[in-house]
Amino acid sequence: MQIELDAIDLIKRAGKYIREKIDGSYHVEQKTGKSDLVTEIDQAVEDLLIQGILDRYPNHHIYGEEGRIARPDTLEGTIWFVDPIDGTMNFIRQKRMFAISIAIMIDGELRYGFVYDVMADELFHVIKGHGAYQNGIRLPQIEERSVKEAIICMNATWVTPNRRINTDRLAPLVRHAVGVRAIGAASLELAWTAAGRVDGYITMRNMPWDYAAGQLLIEEVGGRVGTITGESMSFLEQTSVLAGSQTFVEDVLTFVQTQED
Amino acid sequence: MQIELDAIDLIKRAGKYIREKIDGSYHVEQKTGKSDLVTEIDQAVEDLLIQGILDRYPNHHIYGEEGRIARPDTLEGTIWFVDPIDGTMNFIRQKRMFAISIAIMIDGELRYGFVYDVMADELFHVIKGHGAYQNGIRLPQIEERSVKEAIICMNATWVTPNRRINTDRLAPLVRHAVGVRAIGAASLELAWTAAGRVDGYITMRNMPWDYAAGQLLIEEVGGRVGTITGESMSFLEQTSVLAGSQTFVEDVLTFVQTQED
Repeated sequence: MQIELDAIDLIKRAGKYIREKIDGSYHVEQKTGKSDLVTEIDQAVEDLLIQGILDRYPNHHIYGEEGRIARPDTLEGTIWFVDPIDGTMNFIRQKRMFAISIAIMIDGELRYGFVYDVMADELFHVIKGHGAYQNGIRLPQIEERSVKEAIICMNATWVTPNRRINTDRLAPLVRHAVGVRAIGAASLELAWTAAGRVDGYITMRNMPWDYAAGQLLIEEVGGRVGTITGESMSFLEQTSVLAGSQTFVEDVLTFVQTQED
Repeated sequence: MQIELDAIDLIKRAGKYIREKIDGSYHVEQKTGKSDLVTEIDQAVEDLLIQGILDRYPNHHIYGEEGRIARPDTLEGTIWFVDPIDGTMNFIRQKRMFAISIAIMIDGELRYGFVYDVMADELFHVIKGHGAYQNGIRLPQIEERSVKEAIICMNATWVTPNRRINTDRLAPLVRHAVGVRAIGAASLELAWTAAGRVDGYITMRNMPWDYAAGQLLIEEVGGRVGTITGESMSFLEQTSVLAGSQTFVEDVLTFVQTQED
């Protein structure tokens, strides 16, 4: 499909631009102590993506975090969920482990997803019903692993006192799992779940452009994505995310529901 | 120094071997569902490193986790702290984000440190008094950042009920820091701290071969490494690790000491 080719073209161009510029930013920062160039790159990438989409598809809607992109109020028509740089802190400080995340929804249904790990030049992409791919190689079905066999991507924030969930609900997962990781870029953590590098992703705070592409990747390999209480995503507002194989998600739901508040 | 060249030669050879073999392991696993080849690689790398060291330096001592390597009982003579694959779970599941970690101590003093991110082909190395380097490029002095300006590498384990520390002591760090990450390979998390990609590393459980190379990297760029109660490392047993800039370490010590048990 042309829309898939166009999306990849834009993402790869943006990635190339970032890689060319990001090395220069080291020198500037070491001289000036400022990271303005990093902000400039972020802005330029957003422009490149949005303009690129609107040039080709003037009637499509674009939803995303940055200032110029509207927040969603309806899911009609064709919607691009765009996060030009997911993992901003990693981008600024680590200059790696961030991703361009784009999902395309047509009349309420997620159809295409792209998560591009720019510095690793690793593109995860999915076309609903046609497979999920890591740099063009089809990903196998997700492995069914319970919590006690799992490596979970989850930030320590959600097991320390916070406004969104009682810490006792998620803390037992940490004790029972094989390990816990926190990469700091939701789309990558979801893509890594789809690719079997970790077994699940849990957060209490994501926006649609953070999780939509990763969600479709995981669903395409047989996994499940929903809220921490097991509901479907609305794609209209901030939400919790619980993602992994069917076994993992069901196991986590049981853990969370059986803890005392 | 010859010993530095020899260490790098061994590490790079081992890394090349891993990269050549690890791709093959994908195919085997997809066919058989087993990860025996991964275990084979681990073993072969250990052999390669240990034999390589003993061939060149038959009187040196080698301390490390694996079965064939003794645990330390004295720090006399020349000691190689060797972790053939630090981040075993990442190695097995992610096939990235693991490192070969080697530190050389002469008569009780850390003199050389090497942390090699195999899949990224990124070598962090340090010679005491002569600088710390990332792929040959000298690292600048560590930035002094307090907890509230910091990205901290710390596993969620240490802020959920565990046998080693009261969760209330470390949990406030999570709330006050800019962000928390968990990579799952201590030597890499320490090397990333030295390189300014994150601002500190905290764990309650490390062995000398996990932290020795990373410690020297951090100290060489002006940072500080000790236990969670501010003591120096013994290099003889399991220990907590608190690492970062002077400001960060002092700030964490204050946080930890002022919490109620």
